[in-house]
Amino acid sequence: MSLPKVLILGAGFAGIECAKALRNAAVDITIVDRQNHHLFQPLLYQVASAGLAVPEIAHPVRSIFAHQKNAQVLMEEVTRIDLEAKCVHTSGGDLEYDYLVIALGVKTGYFGNDEWEEHAPGLKSLDDATRIRREILLAYERAENCDDPELRKKLMTTVVIGGGPTGVELAGAFAELARFVLRNDFRRIDTEEARIFLVEAAPQLLTMYDEDLSEYTRNALEEMGVTVKTGCFVETLTEGRVELKEGETIEAENIIWAAGVEAPAITRELGVETDPGGRVMVETDLSIPGFPEVFVAGDIAHCIDQAGVRVPGLCPAAMQMGRHAAKVIWEELKAPLPKNYEVRRQFRYFDKGSMATIGRSKAVAVSGKLKFDGFVAWLMWLFIHLMFLVGFRNKAAVFMQWLYAYIRYRRGARIITGVQTCD
Amino acid sequence: MSLPKVLILGAGFAGIECAKALRNAAVDITIVDRQNHHLFQPLLYQVASAGLAVPEIAHPVRSIFAHQKNAQVLMEEVTRIDLEAKCVHTSGGDLEYDYLVIALGVKTGYFGNDEWEEHAPGLKSLDDATRIRREILLAYERAENCDDPELRKKLMTTVVIGGGPTGVELAGAFAELARFVLRNDFRRIDTEEARIFLVEAAPQLLTMYDEDLSEYTRNALEEMGVTVKTGCFVETLTEGRVELKEGETIEAENIIWAAGVEAPAITRELGVETDPGGRVMVETDLSIPGFPEVFVAGDIAHCIDQAGVRVPGLCPAAMQMGRHAAKVIWEELKAPLPKNYEVRRQFRYFDKGSMATIGRSKAVAVSGKLKFDGFVAWLMWLFIHLMFLVGFRNKAAVFMQWLYAYIRYRRGARIITGVQTCD
Repeated sequence: MSLPKVLILGAGFAGIECAKALRNAAVDITIVDRQNHHLFQPLLYQVASAGLAVPEIAHPVRSIFAHQKNAQVLMEEVTRIDLEAKCVHTSGGDLEYDYLVIALGVKTGYFGNDEWEEHAPGLKSLDDATRIRREILLAYERAENCDDPELRKKLMTTVVIGGGPTGVELAGAFAELARFVLRNDFRRIDTEEARIFLVEAAPQLLTMYDEDLSEYTRNALEEMGVTVKTGCFVETLTEGRVELKEGETIEAENIIWAAGVEAPAITRELGVETDPGGRVMVETDLSIPGFPEVFVAGDIAHCIDQAGVRVPGLCPAAMQMGRHAAKVIWEELKAPLPKNYEVRRQFRYFDKGSMATIGRSKAVAVSGKLKFDGFVAWLMWLFIHLMFLVGFRNKAAVFMQWLYAYIRYRRGARIITGVQTCD
Repeated sequence: MSLPKVLILGAGFAGIECAKALRNAAVDITIVDRQNHHLFQPLLYQVASAGLAVPEIAHPVRSIFAHQKNAQVLMEEVTRIDLEAKCVHTSGGDLEYDYLVIALGVKTGYFGNDEWEEHAPGLKSLDDATRIRREILLAYERAENCDDPELRKKLMTTVVIGGGPTGVELAGAFAELARFVLRNDFRRIDTEEARIFLVEAAPQLLTMYDEDLSEYTRNALEEMGVTVKTGCFVETLTEGRVELKEGETIEAENIIWAAGVEAPAITRELGVETDPGGRVMVETDLSIPGFPEVFVAGDIAHCIDQAGVRVPGLCPAAMQMGRHAAKVIWEELKAPLPKNYEVRRQFRYFDKGSMATIGRSKAVAVSGKLKFDGFVAWLMWLFIHLMFLVGFRNKAAVFMQWLYAYIRYRRGARIITGVQTCD
């Protein structure tokens, strides 16, 4: 008799945690991802800003499960999910399942302006990050050998759109790159003249935090030389140019989009209810209504938990959801038939807090009623992110990089690759 | 009065050493390279075989010279060298010089079969290395989800053409990758069944060494599962297929060319004498006959030194040549006019020996009349390469990677990137 098949789509935090939590279950697990690596997304902005190298924030999915014998990994693209037939179509053939966990994450969203993508790439994958890093570093190289002052100014201008955690982190990291890391490297340009804009439509940065933390963040960024523009809507985005609704136009060689995410298109073809961002509406046990054998976990799920809290799109939430789906599956396999979906374990999000880093020694953090900013928040951020990183090697290597960067104000990862093969 | 202009083409070992040796000279140095990084070429095979990550063997050229105020760096492609007009044309404008040092290195050479390049890439740049790594790792991913036994066999076959140090190192590293590193990662394929071929036209591997070291190398590789084919000429190379003159055909998903190098085409347009590989024939002071202000250093030079020794295409030789050119320039600037080219300092190659690594704890080395093999040679190789690596961060990071790889038999760098953007 063959074991029940648990099919997990996506090797992000939700998918990985779900598979790990089933390590001792009598099931046959298959994890499908189009990449061969699990990505530590919270540090992706550091790769984009040349602070960390690729292998320090990524881990081969296969090596995570090398010794978990009930799990296998397939590197394929999911093309269609057929809930009725209990079958998932992939670039490498069809996969049937007894339990399905959809944990495909979200992608950069342009609120209907998909044509903006080519002028303002988002930051969701390693390839996004290395492309942004390459373009930023190349812009300084070109500025160094440019005699036209207008063009040079444009080459040395970067616009980050979106004042959430990713936008704040990117703007801070780009400012540090220009003002400290690259300072002695050029002879003709002064990288301290580089202009970094952070554009946010809401009246404050980091809208999920209280106003005082937002103010702290704004002041810290401005001290670092970032021009913060809140309450500014983007009207038009074309190659190297951002036009704001207020009439202002910014010419910038590099424009990064960090203003929103949406679920991949595949969710709209499921035939089930989704929210306006394409996230799948789930029951409090994380299953899709009418399909008790299908769970949705991580950022791709729209979940109101047992306590009535909307579960946020954060790492810890994704990990908790992945583990919850695994528990429900395992308990159900152990329980006697007939299965009783009514009495399933309900998901309850445990909010450990959240944080955003701004730069060297500067961060903001919230946990329950506690609020932190400055060096203490930054130390918390450092500690928590190191603890979460998957795998020993990464932890040690990232720690060394950071320590070194902190002491020496140099960045080890600013190598431009792919100029010939990719452009 | 402006300072004498020293223009250095290429930021490899020769170019970097030349510029560094002039750090206290009253000259205006410009280093031009089409990449933004200096590359530690002897370890490039480790990136291609997923043993090391990119930033561990590359260093931004700008950061090497950040504090050498008489040097500036331009990231441009050299398009033409006009010796008569004392002018170098680049993608970013023309550069005049008083002294020129041509240190552009060599590229992969196909002995007139340039159409083989697309089926059997060489290994000279970081982009080459990451492409090879991606293709090798993807082949195993595809094999894991492949039901056709013939195709699976082909996907798990790699051919390395050329039995010099690079070919030996690649074949050994690919064998270790399959047999040890990836062993537990797959469920459907057994990576120990992967086939690695090493094809060499000469009757022995590592032709520059004595027969006993070549025999040791062959035995060590065969023990590791590599099929060594010496005395085998490649007749035809097409996509995924190598035909040998002896009639044998090998079907292989990945074919790597490590059989030869040649100078870039730009040397043939100089109007001066070159050897059949396009290397520029130089005087014993490393200048071009008739152009005493132009030096050629590193692999791109064909040099017979003061002692009548043909200088080999090795790192230490390139570094010595770069420093020699710098000394001649500096001495001449300090000496009274008229300049006397007859009495210039002559180059003499100091042969420290050479080595090749085969795998974990296995290498061969020659220094003068001394010969080493096995663990002792490997320790020498490890020590010397670590000492030579540019920059503290790299040394420490590479050492940690190696130590970890040695203890745990895992590789940290096997992340596939660029699948979407580059392919």
